[in-house]
This record gives sequence, structure tokens and C-alpha cells, in this order.
Amino acid sequence: MTQQSDTTADSAGRVHDRFGDAGAPAVLRRLSASPALVRRREDRDLADRIALSAATGRGAHLRTEDVHAWLAERRRADVFHVERIPFAELDEWRFERGTGNLVHHSGRFFTVEGLHVVEHDGPYGDGPRREWQQPVIRQPEVGILGILAKELGGVLHFLMQAKMEPGNPNLLQLSPTVQATRSNYTKAHRGADVKLIDHFVRPDPDRVIVDVLQSEQGSWFFRKSNRNMIVETADEVPASDDFCWLTLGQIAELLHEDDTVNMNARSVLSCVPYRDTTPGALHSDAQLLSWFTGERSRRDVRARRIPLASVRGWKHGVEAIEHEDGRYFKVAAVSVRAGNREVVGWTQPLLEPVALGLAAFLVREIDGVPHVLVHARAEGGFLDTVELAPTVQCTPGNYAHLPAADRPPFLDAVLDAPPSRIRYQAVHSEEGGRFLNARSRYLVVDADPAAASLDPPPAYTWATPAQLRALTRHGHYLNVESRTLLACLNAVAARSRGGK
Amino acid sequence: MTQQSDTTADSAGRVHDRFGDAGAPAVLRRLSASPALVRRREDRDLADRIALSAATGRGAHLRTEDVHAWLAERRRADVFHVERIPFAELDEWRFERGTGNLVHHSGRFFTVEGLHVVEHDGPYGDGPRREWQQPVIRQPEVGILGILAKELGGVLHFLMQAKMEPGNPNLLQLSPTVQATRSNYTKAHRGADVKLIDHFVRPDPDRVIVDVLQSEQGSWFFRKSNRNMIVETADEVPASDDFCWLTLGQIAELLHEDDTVNMNARSVLSCVPYRDTTPGALHSDAQLLSWFTGERSRRDVRARRIPLASVRGWKHGVEAIEHEDGRYFKVAAVSVRAGNREVVGWTQPLLEPVALGLAAFLVREIDGVPHVLVHARAEGGFLDTVELAPTVQCTPGNYAHLPAADRPPFLDAVLDAPPSRIRYQAVHSEEGGRFLNARSRYLVVDADPAAASLDPPPAYTWATPAQLRALTRHGHYLNVESRTLLACLNAVAARSRGGK
Repeated sequence: MTQQSDTTADSAGRVHDRFGDAGAPAVLRRLSASPALVRRREDRDLADRIALSAATGRGAHLRTEDVHAWLAERRRADVFHVERIPFAELDEWRFERGTGNLVHHSGRFFTVEGLHVVEHDGPYGDGPRREWQQPVIRQPEVGILGILAKELGGVLHFLMQAKMEPGNPNLLQLSPTVQATRSNYTKAHRGADVKLIDHFVRPDPDRVIVDVLQSEQGSWFFRKSNRNMIVETADEVPASDDFCWLTLGQIAELLHEDDTVNMNARSVLSCVPYRDTTPGALHSDAQLLSWFTGERSRRDVRARRIPLASVRGWKHGVEAIEHEDGRYFKVAAVSVRAGNREVVGWTQPLLEPVALGLAAFLVREIDGVPHVLVHARAEGGFLDTVELAPTVQCTPGNYAHLPAADRPPFLDAVLDAPPSRIRYQAVHSEEGGRFLNARSRYLVVDADPAAASLDPPPAYTWATPAQLRALTRHGHYLNVESRTLLACLNAVAARSRGGK
Repeated sequence: MTQQSDTTADSAGRVHDRFGDAGAPAVLRRLSASPALVRRREDRDLADRIALSAATGRGAHLRTEDVHAWLAERRRADVFHVERIPFAELDEWRFERGTGNLVHHSGRFFTVEGLHVVEHDGPYGDGPRREWQQPVIRQPEVGILGILAKELGGVLHFLMQAKMEPGNPNLLQLSPTVQATRSNYTKAHRGADVKLIDHFVRPDPDRVIVDVLQSEQGSWFFRKSNRNMIVETADEVPASDDFCWLTLGQIAELLHEDDTVNMNARSVLSCVPYRDTTPGALHSDAQLLSWFTGERSRRDVRARRIPLASVRGWKHGVEAIEHEDGRYFKVAAVSVRAGNREVVGWTQPLLEPVALGLAAFLVREIDGVPHVLVHARAEGGFLDTVELAPTVQCTPGNYAHLPAADRPPFLDAVLDAPPSRIRYQAVHSEEGGRFLNARSRYLVVDADPAAASLDPPPAYTWATPAQLRALTRHGHYLNVESRTLLACLNAVAARSRGGK
């Protein structure tokens, strides 16, 4: 195939040179810019531009210390009331006859249904077995989480939105430029256009920095993915008061604060392709992938949707569907009145966890290279058995009634870590459009080598942040909690390099 | 995090140096070999060793020209009779009461069920819509397809098995060292141990060359993946008469022959990490992944299992379940008697396509770099909407009744290509353990630039073989037909470099 000549004759005998295809305008456009059609598979400049943005603590638009004042001002500018209501007061939602599923009258948005999960460790029930039922959110459509990027003064800035979401404890947080369900951008809201969406629905292929389908919470969603995107533009971007341009260095600083950068933004930011500046890792990429393949092959998770009315162990009240022992989460309903949303008011169900969650990476330096201990974790709502989760991911309160031996591995190592070992901590909120007051404490903790050996138990392995970043180019490797922690690790690194 | 010192003290005050963890034997083993725990993320020598194997046409074990004689001899050595039987004569299989699903009495192996597929191009039915029902094989377990590798005379050789499968038109083909369902290696066959399986069930992490979950036919299987593996060994491997060691150059030669290298072997071989020797591609990796993400987001494929008895458009006879118009495939039953299998005889259902299939890549050189035209194709049995398929993948006979405009894109360009444009062709069989006489013509065809522009229609794009090889490190990108063609492209390249 390598001997093919540079010219070929078509059926009419015309000779085309290797830059042929005179009928294709896109090709001609490329030709006028450069005679070469083939480019490098990797954009080497991009990593430099990202490093510069991460090292830039002073933004061209707003100083980091002024972001809070701006957020507070946006919070005052818009009237936004969220109130719990009984299910009976939901406007366009109802419990479907027969199944008891909670559905929107249009058939769009999402539904709350039941899920039956059976997990075997081996095939055919020859390993440990877990089985449970739970309510779950089903939304079989791909939304867009898009951050617009642009060079200001030669430094990449990212357009963040001050966005209100009814489930956020403080209502308004820093969000991607665009976060739109397909219902949004196909106008199910019948409201104003979702701003700026065109940069992401029809992205310029030459300016895409991140574009990958990533999973959402597998414990609360049934096989939900969103399209995580960063797209650069050279266009003038009309700047509304709800938006501000920030460098990666500024965002890193803000990621150290509680309830400030929302889950969708953290997820997109975890996919930023920083360069790997380390010499390697404990396990090569091939070894890491082989370990992951083994975990996915070994586990057998079967999840089946069932009617919400039939879910065992949960009770259905006037204002909430909740677990009989008060654990895990509730399904609740809220009424929302707002001024700056696509519609001016609505009611909707939300999932409300009963307590503060915990997501932590244990970290160790190996030959001077930081590694985190990842966990191949099964969640009922994952598309495929397991994804890579934090070392510890749980709601500690759900385990308080259990003896120590039945608590999640490494939970006590994280909870008992002295302050000197805590490299990062902040409380972040999960998606405020679906989850009510869903807050988790995110921690990066120096491992005590005695408690976290280099030969960890099955389903755990050591990986470098660079390896995890490489995996975020593809979907269904890192779960959303480990993506948040990866964004936090990037933020810690940016800060230590002086992005302040 | 980079300021961490090389020593840390545990809770008892003992000081560990950075090579600590004295309690972990694996670490100590590594330490005794080398003081450095961190390795490069990529094994740079491996690509050289693979290139050497591909360039080696003369194997240490058997000459390529003698492989056929060996295969013929193995064919004679074992009695193997396959006979069609009516469903009523299936031994341990029955049509389940109520659903009509075809099931094994043990509940293991696989079932034949019904599938209802709805495909929208846009969300909520606002794009073109297709809907159909069909029988489908369901086997919710991960099998192992493993090839053992070993250096003989300094050159990597691969241990291929002469394996009989009842659905193969010539019964016996070159197969991976091991192909085992979990039923096999957990002894559901109650027969002899599957040989050599331990190299793959507990692979040595330092010697894994390939280890990835790859999908099988999405038109015939419901969400089936197998673990594709190549593991190297330095051990003595007891050589039975059914096995032979071949270089990649020898296998490349054999891949040019009809019905010789089985589907599982082709799938594993497509994942061999050859080095990319080209300067780049028309689209960067980020662009290619972004295009793929867009295709996956745009399409909406919902597949639901239904009872086999309820599948519309198919009729259930004494010897076959077939499509009312005689298209697509039949479900049939066979009786097998064999000497060298895990069990000495059995009956089983098989899927039998009604006609020869076609799978073809159109190929174009762009700036001297070969590119193939891939298709983001939806199949009802895929885990996630679309995978990358050949430019053309169909059973041409299924479209003979349609006007030209309704035939698959590029079908005529492939069928009408003059012999001078055909770079590769061979007829290969699909998996003989599930499919009866399922043969497809695999083609690589030089594109007429007038018919295959660099701006192809939606759902098609140009990618280099090296880009496709990089994607085979991960599951659910390349479907099994495009993996076969990628293995063929590797074979064409090996041959042109003199691996003869």
C-alpha cells in the first residue's frame, strides 16, 4: 500500500494529484492555508498553552478575589426561590398509573423509576453476591456540558457561567458556559434559546480541546452520560453579566473553596489535557488497562429497571420516597421560581441524599512520582460493570451501624488521617438540577505507607494523575467522583506551581 | 505534592524510605531486580519486537507453506461430524415455556431471545426512524480469547491452535491459543480442563501485550464482549499436536487465504500494538475522537429484549426460525460429534446467515499516508449506540430488492471496483461456535477519489490504520468486522515489507 503513486486517474481518465478532490470546498479551504493535509496526531502546542493558563493566576477579566463578589452580585440580581412541595403539587409531573414511575407529562426530561441490581463477583453466582433495589433517575439522552475557551492577552481563558440550580445549597455556582439537556436545546422548555450552544452543537473540529462522553453518578442515574466539551473560539463572544472569563490558574484557586465550582464544570475540567511531566508510573499504561480489563471481566453486575411502585425497602410518603431505615437518599419535589432561566418557574423532583458524602484519594509518592489509589467500583447505573472510583467513596453515615470489618476499605484510614496528611479538602455539590443538597467532602490524603501498600487488595491499584488524565479522553473509565478529584489534583498542582 | 520528602514516618514512628513497604513481597521482588519502581508508561522495545516478528516470514517451528498440510493432518486426526437436526432433537436445549426463548437446561452457555430495536437519528423522534425485531443471541458473560507469545530464536512467535468449530464451513481453522467462555473454564462442560488457560486467567502483568474487552457482532449478539489477550511467556510450553508457533509475518501470509484464520484470532491480532510509522493523519486523534463523540451523541438507539416467541416478521419452523422474506439469517440446530473437544458430543443452536456477507474499507492515500473510510454504524446489539465499522458492511443480497438510492452508501463503489483497485481480498468465517457457514468477503479497495471525497457524508470519516490500532486499546470503538479488516491491513503492510 505504501507503493501507491501520488497520482491516480479516475474513470474519465483525468489525473488527480494527491491533493485532488477539486469538488470539495473544505479541502480547498485547507489547501489555501497549507499544502499539507496531514497533521500530527497530537497537538503539541496545546499542552504548552494549557500549562501557561494554569500558571496564570491573574486573569484578564476578573481578579480571582473578585469572583466571590461577582457571584454574590449575580445571586442578588436574580430572584430565585426554591421550596419543597408535596408530590401532589408537582405541576407537569405525575406518578404513572401501573408502574408508579414519576414522569413528566411531555414524556421528556427524566423519569424516576426503580432499579434491581444483582452483583456477582464471579460468573454464575460462584462469588460473593449483593442484591438490592432502589429508585433511580432515567434520562436516556446525551446532554452537553461545554466550556468555551479563548485566548485573552495570549493566555487561554475559560468562560464560566454563574448559574442557579435549585438543588445547590447556595443556589448559584460556577458552571460551564453551556449545560444543556437535549430537551433544552430542542426547545422542550419552550423558553428562550440556550445561549452559546451553537459552539458545541456544531463545533469547529480545528478548535476542539475536549469532547468525550462521560458517565454521571452510577448510584443515582441509570446509564447517564453527558458530552463533556471544551471548544476554543477566536470570535467575539457577547459577554452577558452571568459570564466571566477565568484562567485555569484562577479556576484552580476557586476549586479549593466549598460549593463554588459545580459538578459539571469539575467534570469537564478533569478532562483538560495537561502534559505528563513525570518520568512514568508504577504500572505501564498497558498494565493499568489490563488490570482494568480484568476487573471488568471478573465482575458481573446485572441491573434491570423495575416499576418504582415495586421497589422493595423504600416507602412512599406525601413529600418523599425514602429508604425504610432512613439511609441513602430520598426522592423529593420542589417548586422553583426564577428570573433568568429558560422558563420563569417550574416544579420538579430531585434526589436528596440523607447525609454528607465522602470521596477521597489516598496518594503516595513512588520514586518521587505521586500516585493515587483507584478503586474499580461497581455501581448499578453504570453502562458497563465498573468504573474507576476514588479510594473511598461513600456516605459514612450509611455504614455507622456496621462493625469496622464491614466498613468500606480505607474509610478509617481517610477519616483518621491527621491534618498534616491532608493535601486537599473541600466540600463540593453534585448536580443541582437533579440532586438536592447533595454535598460531598472531597479529600486528597497522603497515605500512611503501612496502611496502603504498593500491593493493594483486589479491585484497587495505583495510578498517576497523568494516567487518569489520559483515560479521560475516553468514556466509562473514571466515574464522576474520581473526575472531581482529578480536577482537584490538577488544581493542587497548578497552585503549587505558583498559579496564584 | 511535589515537595513531599523521601521519608515518611508511620503511626508507630518507624521511618520508611520511598522504597518502603517492607511487608510487601512483590515490592521486594521488584526491588531486588532494580531500585526503580517507576517505569515508562509505554514499552518502547515492544514495537521493535513486533516489527521484527512481522518482518519474519520464516518461522522457527513450521514453514508457512507447511501450515496447510498440518491443518489437513489435524483435520484427519480427529473425527468431527456436524449434522443439522430439527429443534426437537436438541439434547439439553428447549424452548422456554412462555417466552419461547431457546435456552440450555443448565441456564448457562447462551440463549436465543428476541430483540426490539428503535433507532432515531435525533432525540425524541425528530430524525429519521428505523424500527425492527429480530432473534438475537444473549450470552451475558465475558469469554477469553488469548494468544500466547514467546520468543523463539529472538523473534516473537504466537501459539495458534488448529481448532474445530461446528459452524466453520471447513470445520477447522487457526484459532487463538485459548478461546474459552466462562462456562468453559468454570467447567460447565464437565470435560477436560481448557489447556493453557492459566496464562490468561491470571496473567503476569509484566508480560501482557494485549488485554482489552472487544465487542462481537452487534447484529447477532446482544451486548457481547470478549477479553482479547496476548500474553508473553518465557516458560516451556508443552506443545500438543493441535498447536503451532507462528510469527506475525507468517500469520500475515495466512490472513491472505480464505477460511484459514478464525474470527477470534483476527480480532485479537487487530489489537497488536504496531508502531505508527506515518507522520500523522488527516484528522488529529482529538478530532477523530470528537467526531466519534458527536456521532454517539447524535444517534439514539434503544434496544429491548423481548420474548423470542413474540418477534414479528419471523416464522418458527421445525428446523429453523427464519425471516418471512428469507432475508438476514436463520436460527438452526446441529448435532456435533468430536474427539478432541472438552466433551465428546453435543447439540446446539447456531445462527446461519442466508448469504455471503461483505465488509470493505475504501482506502485513499492522503499526502502519501493511507487512510480508510470508517463508518459510525448503529447495531441493535451494541452496548452503546454506534461503533466504527467498515465503509461497507452488509449482506448484498438483502438489498438486491431495493432501488440503488436505498442501497448502502459506497456499496456500488466497492462491488464495481476494477481488479486493479483491489488491495486485499479474502473470504473469512465468523465465529464457528455460534454461526453456521457465516462467511464474508473482506475487501480493501482503493477509492476512486471522485466517489470518495475527503469530506464524506455524515457518519463517515477518514482515519489511518495507526489511529484505528490506537483505538483497539479500548473497547467499543471498532466493531468486529472492522477489526478483521484492520488485521488484514496489518497483514498487507507486513507482506509489503517483505515478511514472506
